[in-house]
Amino acid sequence: MVRVALDAMGGDLGPKAAVEGAIAALKSAPGPLTVVLTGDEPTLRGLVSECGGEGMPLEIVHTTQVVEMTDTPTVALKTKPDSSLAVCVGLQKKGLVHASASPGNTGAMMAASLMILGRAGKISRPTVATVLPTATNKVVMVDSGANVDEKPTQLLQFAVCGSIYAQKVLGVDNPKVALLNMGEEEHKGTEVVAEAYKLLKASHLNFVGNVEGHDLLKGGFDVLVTPGYTGNIVLKLFEGFGEYLVHNFRKAVSGASFDAIFESFNYENSAGGLLLGLDGTSVIMHGRSTPRAYCTGILIARQMAEAQVHRKIAEDIERLEPSA
Amino acid sequence: MVRVALDAMGGDLGPKAAVEGAIAALKSAPGPLTVVLTGDEPTLRGLVSECGGEGMPLEIVHTTQVVEMTDTPTVALKTKPDSSLAVCVGLQKKGLVHASASPGNTGAMMAASLMILGRAGKISRPTVATVLPTATNKVVMVDSGANVDEKPTQLLQFAVCGSIYAQKVLGVDNPKVALLNMGEEEHKGTEVVAEAYKLLKASHLNFVGNVEGHDLLKGGFDVLVTPGYTGNIVLKLFEGFGEYLVHNFRKAVSGASFDAIFESFNYENSAGGLLLGLDGTSVIMHGRSTPRAYCTGILIARQMAEAQVHRKIAEDIERLEPSA
Repeated sequence: MVRVALDAMGGDLGPKAAVEGAIAALKSAPGPLTVVLTGDEPTLRGLVSECGGEGMPLEIVHTTQVVEMTDTPTVALKTKPDSSLAVCVGLQKKGLVHASASPGNTGAMMAASLMILGRAGKISRPTVATVLPTATNKVVMVDSGANVDEKPTQLLQFAVCGSIYAQKVLGVDNPKVALLNMGEEEHKGTEVVAEAYKLLKASHLNFVGNVEGHDLLKGGFDVLVTPGYTGNIVLKLFEGFGEYLVHNFRKAVSGASFDAIFESFNYENSAGGLLLGLDGTSVIMHGRSTPRAYCTGILIARQMAEAQVHRKIAEDIERLEPSA
Repeated sequence: MVRVALDAMGGDLGPKAAVEGAIAALKSAPGPLTVVLTGDEPTLRGLVSECGGEGMPLEIVHTTQVVEMTDTPTVALKTKPDSSLAVCVGLQKKGLVHASASPGNTGAMMAASLMILGRAGKISRPTVATVLPTATNKVVMVDSGANVDEKPTQLLQFAVCGSIYAQKVLGVDNPKVALLNMGEEEHKGTEVVAEAYKLLKASHLNFVGNVEGHDLLKGGFDVLVTPGYTGNIVLKLFEGFGEYLVHNFRKAVSGASFDAIFESFNYENSAGGLLLGLDGTSVIMHGRSTPRAYCTGILIARQMAEAQVHRKIAEDIERLEPSA
C-alpha cells in the first residue's frame, strides 16, 4: 500500500479539482494507493461526497492555514505550520504517508520539503527535475530552478538524481545523460559547466556529451543537465512554445499526429517539479493543476515512493568520487 | 557611399550564393552601396558575370586562403592572414570599407574582428547580438554566446550595445531593456544576474525589469540581456523551435497569418550575429546563408555603418558610471 498526501488547498482551481484528481488517481492506480488530503476537513468531506469518493481509500487530515502564492518561503514556514502544504509534508516525516504532493507555492514547498524531510544521504543540495517533451522521448532536466551558482560537483549530483528518476520512473535502461552547452566540444561553456563535463565523463553515469539548444526538441537522450538559472529559462521557454503552438495552430490542424504533438506539450501530462535529493518523495505540481494534472502528479508520486527513488539517490551519491 | 566587404568564400552554399546575395543587396539598398567581395578573384569575376552583376558597384579583392569551419580561431588568425575572412575585416581597418560581413567560422570572425578592429572605446568585451522573433516585435538579445562567466558590468555594457542597435538599426525609440531571469523579483537569478539587475536599474537605459522564459515569445520589450551561455542556448532553442514548426506544420496550414509566423522564424530574415562593441562594423552571417540571407546581412551591415553604431556605443559606454 502506497500512501500519498495531497495538499488539497494550494491550487488555483480550488479544492474540488484536487478531490476530483485524487479520485481519478485512485481509479487508475496500477497498484494499491491511498490518498490523504490535507485541508479544511468539512469542505473536503463535502467534496469527496459530491464527487463520488465515498468508500474509496481517501482520508482527510484537517488543517487551518493555507500558504498563499505570494508568501515567501520564510513566512510560510515560520507563521503557517498548520498549512495544508506543511502538514502534507509533515505527514511523511511522521511515517504516515510515503509521498507528498502540492500544487502550491513552489518556494514554500521546496523549503518545507528540505526542512522537514532533510537531504538524501550526503547530497549537497536537492534539485527540482522537470520532464520536457521532445520529438522522440521524455527528457528529465536538472536543475529546473531550485538552485543558482552551483558548483560542478552539485551538477554531477543533480545528474545522478535525474538518471535514477529516468531509470526507476520512466523505465529507461541505462539513461543517456547529456550536458546542455554552447557547442559539442569538451571545453565549452562556463567554467562550472566545463568542469561538470569532466566530472560527468569520469562518473558511472552513461554520459553522452554536450547537447545544444537546437538538439533539445529532437530528443535522443534521457537526462539533461544544466545550472538552475538556465534550466528555469529553458523550462519556461518550453511552456511558452507549448502555449504558442496551441494558440496559433490547434484550431487550424487536426489528426492523430498533431494531437500527439499538442499532448506532448500539455502540462497536464507531467507532474510539474520533482524534488530529487530529499530523504523522501516530494512533488511540486503546477499551480493551475486540473483534475487530470492532479491525477498525474499523484500517480508519479506513488511511483517514486514505490521505487524508493530517494534511497537509490542516497546510495548512488555515495558511489561518486570522494571529491564529489 | 557605404562600402561593405563580404567574405564570399566562407559560406556552406559556396561563392555563387554570396555573389547573388550581393547583387540583390545592390538592387534593393535604400541608399548608395558598394560591395567588395573577398575571395578567389577569377572565380568571383566569373560568377559576377554569370549572375548579371557587371557594371554594378561590385569590387573584388583577391585572397588565396579560406578559413575552414573546423579551424580554431588561433589557427585561422595565425596561419591564414590572406583568408577571405581576415582580409574582409582587414579592409575595414585600412579604411577601404565601412563594414565587414562573413558567413564563415564564427569563432574566427569574432577573433579576427576583435584583433583587427579593436574595441569601441572603453568597453570591456564585445558582444554578439542576435535578433529573435516574437509575436509582436523583434528582440535584440545580448549576449548570444561570444562570452562566458561575465561580470555584471559586462552585462550592463552588452545592454548598452543592444539598446543602441535597437534604436539605430531597428528604429525603436527609447528601447525597452529586459533581463532574462527566473522570476519577476529584483533579487532573482545568479549573483551576477541579480547584480546586473541593479546596474541596469541605475543606468540611463530604459530598463523594464525581468522577463521569464514564457514571456519571450510574446515580446513587448526590445532588448534582452542574459549571459552568453544561456543566450546561446536560448538562441539555438529558438532555431530548433523554428525548424520544428516548419517541419511539423508548414504543409498542414496555409494563409497569411501562418506565412507571417513561418517568416518570423526564417533565419534568412535576420543577419545572424552582430558583433557589437568593436571599433567598426562586423556581421557574422549564418553559415548556411542563402542569397537572400546574404542580401539581408549586407544591408544590415550597411545600416549599422551608416548609423555609426560603433561610435555611439563608444560614447554611451563612456556615459556609464565610473565603476562600470
